[in-house]
Amino acid sequence: SNKAALDDQSHRRWNPLLDEWVLVSPHRAKRPWQGQQEAPATDVPPSYDASCYLCAGNKRITGDINPAYQGTFVFDNDFPALQDNAVELDVPDDSLLVARSVQGAARVICFSPDHSKSLPQLSEAALVGVIDTWVTQLLELGAQYEWVQIFENKGAVMGCSNPHPHGQVWAQDQLPTEAAKIDANLARYQHEHERNLLLDYAEKEIALGERVVEQNDHWVVVVPFWACWPFETLLLPRMPVTHLDQLNVEQKASLAQILKRFLTRYDNLFQCSFPYSMGWRGRAFNNQDQSHWQLHASFFPPLLRSASVKKFMVGYEMLAEAQRDITPEQAAERLRACSTTHFLSE
Amino acid sequence: SNKAALDDQSHRRWNPLLDEWVLVSPHRAKRPWQGQQEAPATDVPPSYDASCYLCAGNKRITGDINPAYQGTFVFDNDFPALQDNAVELDVPDDSLLVARSVQGAARVICFSPDHSKSLPQLSEAALVGVIDTWVTQLLELGAQYEWVQIFENKGAVMGCSNPHPHGQVWAQDQLPTEAAKIDANLARYQHEHERNLLLDYAEKEIALGERVVEQNDHWVVVVPFWACWPFETLLLPRMPVTHLDQLNVEQKASLAQILKRFLTRYDNLFQCSFPYSMGWRGRAFNNQDQSHWQLHASFFPPLLRSASVKKFMVGYEMLAEAQRDITPEQAAERLRACSTTHFLSE
Ligand SMILES: O=P(O)(O)O[C@H]1O[C@H](CO)[C@@H](O)[C@H](O)[C@H]1O
Ligand SMILES: O=P(O)(O)O[C@H]1O[C@H](CO)[C@@H](O)[C@H](O)[C@H]1O
Repeated sequence: SNKAALDDQSHRRWNPLLDEWVLVSPHRAKRPWQGQQEAPATDVPPSYDASCYLCAGNKRITGDINPAYQGTFVFDNDFPALQDNAVELDVPDDSLLVARSVQGAARVICFSPDHSKSLPQLSEAALVGVIDTWVTQLLELGAQYEWVQIFENKGAVMGCSNPHPHGQVWAQDQLPTEAAKIDANLARYQHEHERNLLLDYAEKEIALGERVVEQNDHWVVVVPFWACWPFETLLLPRMPVTHLDQLNVEQKASLAQILKRFLTRYDNLFQCSFPYSMGWRGRAFNNQDQSHWQLHASFFPPLLRSASVKKFMVGYEMLAEAQRDITPEQAAERLRACSTTHFLSE
Repeated sequence: SNKAALDDQSHRRWNPLLDEWVLVSPHRAKRPWQGQQEAPATDVPPSYDASCYLCAGNKRITGDINPAYQGTFVFDNDFPALQDNAVELDVPDDSLLVARSVQGAARVICFSPDHSKSLPQLSEAALVGVIDTWVTQLLELGAQYEWVQIFENKGAVMGCSNPHPHGQVWAQDQLPTEAAKIDANLARYQHEHERNLLLDYAEKEIALGERVVEQNDHWVVVVPFWACWPFETLLLPRMPVTHLDQLNVEQKASLAQILKRFLTRYDNLFQCSFPYSMGWRGRAFNNQDQSHWQLHASFFPPLLRSASVKKFMVGYEMLAEAQRDITPEQAAERLRACSTTHFLSE
C-alpha cells in the first residue's frame, strides 16, 4: 500500500506554502546507530546572571542599563541588520546586478526577567504576557513597515549563546523572499478553491490524526506532511485569523496553553533545552487584500538523534533539494509519546 | 554615490539564478569584535589512518574492503538517501498531501588515497584526475537519471567528520527543487535576451573586477553580487559549456589550476582547512532543449570571522530572508589579499 511505501521508500513531498519539494529517505533511518545515549542536561543556569546583557538592571554594550522589568522587555537591537537608511539607493539599471534600498527595524524581546527559564518553563499567565508583547510590536512596527517578522533563535546550535529567554522582531518595508512565496501560494489556493489553504490543511490533519502532536479548541500542532527538519512543527489556528492582533482573550489563553504543552514535549524528547528557530507569519501590512492570509508559527529544530546529534542541511540540500530521514509521521509519534510535564520540574 | 551607499547601508540584492533576494547589512560588520585571534590549525592528519573507512585497503561498515586505489575511488553510498524503489507510489489524489516516488542513486568519491590532503593540497595532475572522475560519474548516472548532483561537504561544521578528501554524487530521476528554479531562470533569460545569463554575468564581472577572486583564460571565480554566505564564491567558465563532460583537455587543466589557487586562498584566509559545501550544476539529462544551461560550481563556506566563528542562517533567514553582514565586494577583497601558496606548505 501507499502508506507502507511512504514508510519505507525514498519519495518526494510537496510543500504547498513554498511550492517546493523535499526528499524523504525513510530507509536511511535504519542505518546502524552506535547510540550515544546522553545524560539529561540538568545544569540549570542561575535566575540572575551578572554578566548577562539581558538580565534586569544590567548594562549593555552600548552603555544602556536594562530597567528592573517584571514581565517582558523590548529594546532596539544594538546592532540592527535593518534600519532606516539616510540615502535612498538609485536602482542601478542592469539586468544582472540588481539592488534596492530597504528600510526597517530590529528589536530584541526579553520574555522574562528570569535568566534560567525558557518558554515552556514560564507560567501560562507569563506566556500570555509574551503573546501580548508580540501583538504590541506587531502593531507598532506594522504601522510603519510592510512585513513584521517575529522570531526566536534558541540554543547555541542556532547561533544563540545567551540562554536568557528572548526573541527578536525585525521589520522591513518590502515582503521578504520567503514571505513573498507564501503570499503568492496562499493567494493562488484561495483563488482556485475559494477556501483558505491552512484552514483546509488544519482540518485535514485533525481528521487524519497521524501527524498531530497536540490540539485544543483553537489550535493544532502538526509535523507538517512536507517538514524538512526532523522534528519541525507547524502551529495552526483552527479559526480564520490573519495575524496575532486578531486573537481574543480566550484564543490567547489557549495559545499559551498549547505552547507550554508542546514545547515541553520538545524539551523532553532528548532531555535538554530543545534548540530551534521559530517564527510567526501572518498578513502583510500594506493596502492590498490580505484575506488569503492565515496566521501560523513554524518551529525548525535541528536535532535528529540526541541532544547533540543534529541534521546537517548541507551539500545536496544547498545545491539541489532538502532531504530528511525519519518520516513526519514517525516524528509526530515520537513527540506524542513525550510527557507534557517538563523533565526539570518535579 | 550608490557605491558608498552599498558599502554602508542596508539593502537587498537580487539573485537572478533563483529569483530570490538577500538582505545585506554592511553597517553590521562595524559591530565591535573582541577578536578571538586563533592560532593556525597546523595539526595535520596522517597520510593513512587505520580507522578511516575511506583509506585504501580498509574495511567499511558493510564488510566491503576498499581496493588499494591510487587516484580516485568511487563506491555506492552504504546508506543511500536515493535508490531505485521497488514499488511505484500511487500519487494520492489530494491538493495538500502530495507525494511522489523518486528513483535515484548515491555514491561516494574519494579524491585521493592520501588521508591528509584536501583538494588544494593535491597536485594539478591529481585534480585533473578528480575532474575526470566527475565526468565519468556524470555520464554513467546521466544515462539513467535526469539530474546528477556532484558535491562535496567539507569540515565537521558541514556535517563531515572524516577529513579524508572525498565528495559525493547523488542522482534523481526528476529535477530537484533548486535545479528546477535555476533551469527556469536560465531559460527565461535566454528567451528574453537571446544570450546566456551566466556567460553575460562572467563577462560583466571580469570587466568590473571588484568581485573577482581569481581568473585565467577559461575560468573566473567571483563572490557573486547576490552571495548569501560571507565568503561564498561562484566558479564560472568563460566559454559556453553545459556540463563537465564538454570540457576539453586544456579547459580541464586550467580548471585544475584555478581550483588549486582559489581553494588555497580559502585555506589561507583563516589558516585552517576551510569548511564548505560545494557542488556543480549543469544541464539536465532529459530530452528537452538544454541550450540555456551553463555549467557552474557554487561554494558555500560558513565561516565569518575566524576558523571557529561562523555565520548562522537561522531565524530571520529561515522564516523570511537570507541576510549577510560584510558585502560581497569586501569578501572578494579579503580573498584577493590571501596568498596562493598554502599556509601548510613550505
Ligand atoms: O551522506 P552523509 O555524508 O552521511 O550526509 C551528509 O550529507 C548529506 C548530503 O548533503 C546530508 O543530507 C546529510 O545531512 C549530511 O550529514
Ligand atoms: O541578531 P543575532 O542574535 O546576533 O543574530 C542571529 O540571528 C540573526 C537573525 O536570525 C542572524 O542573522 C544571525 O546570523 C544570528 O547569529
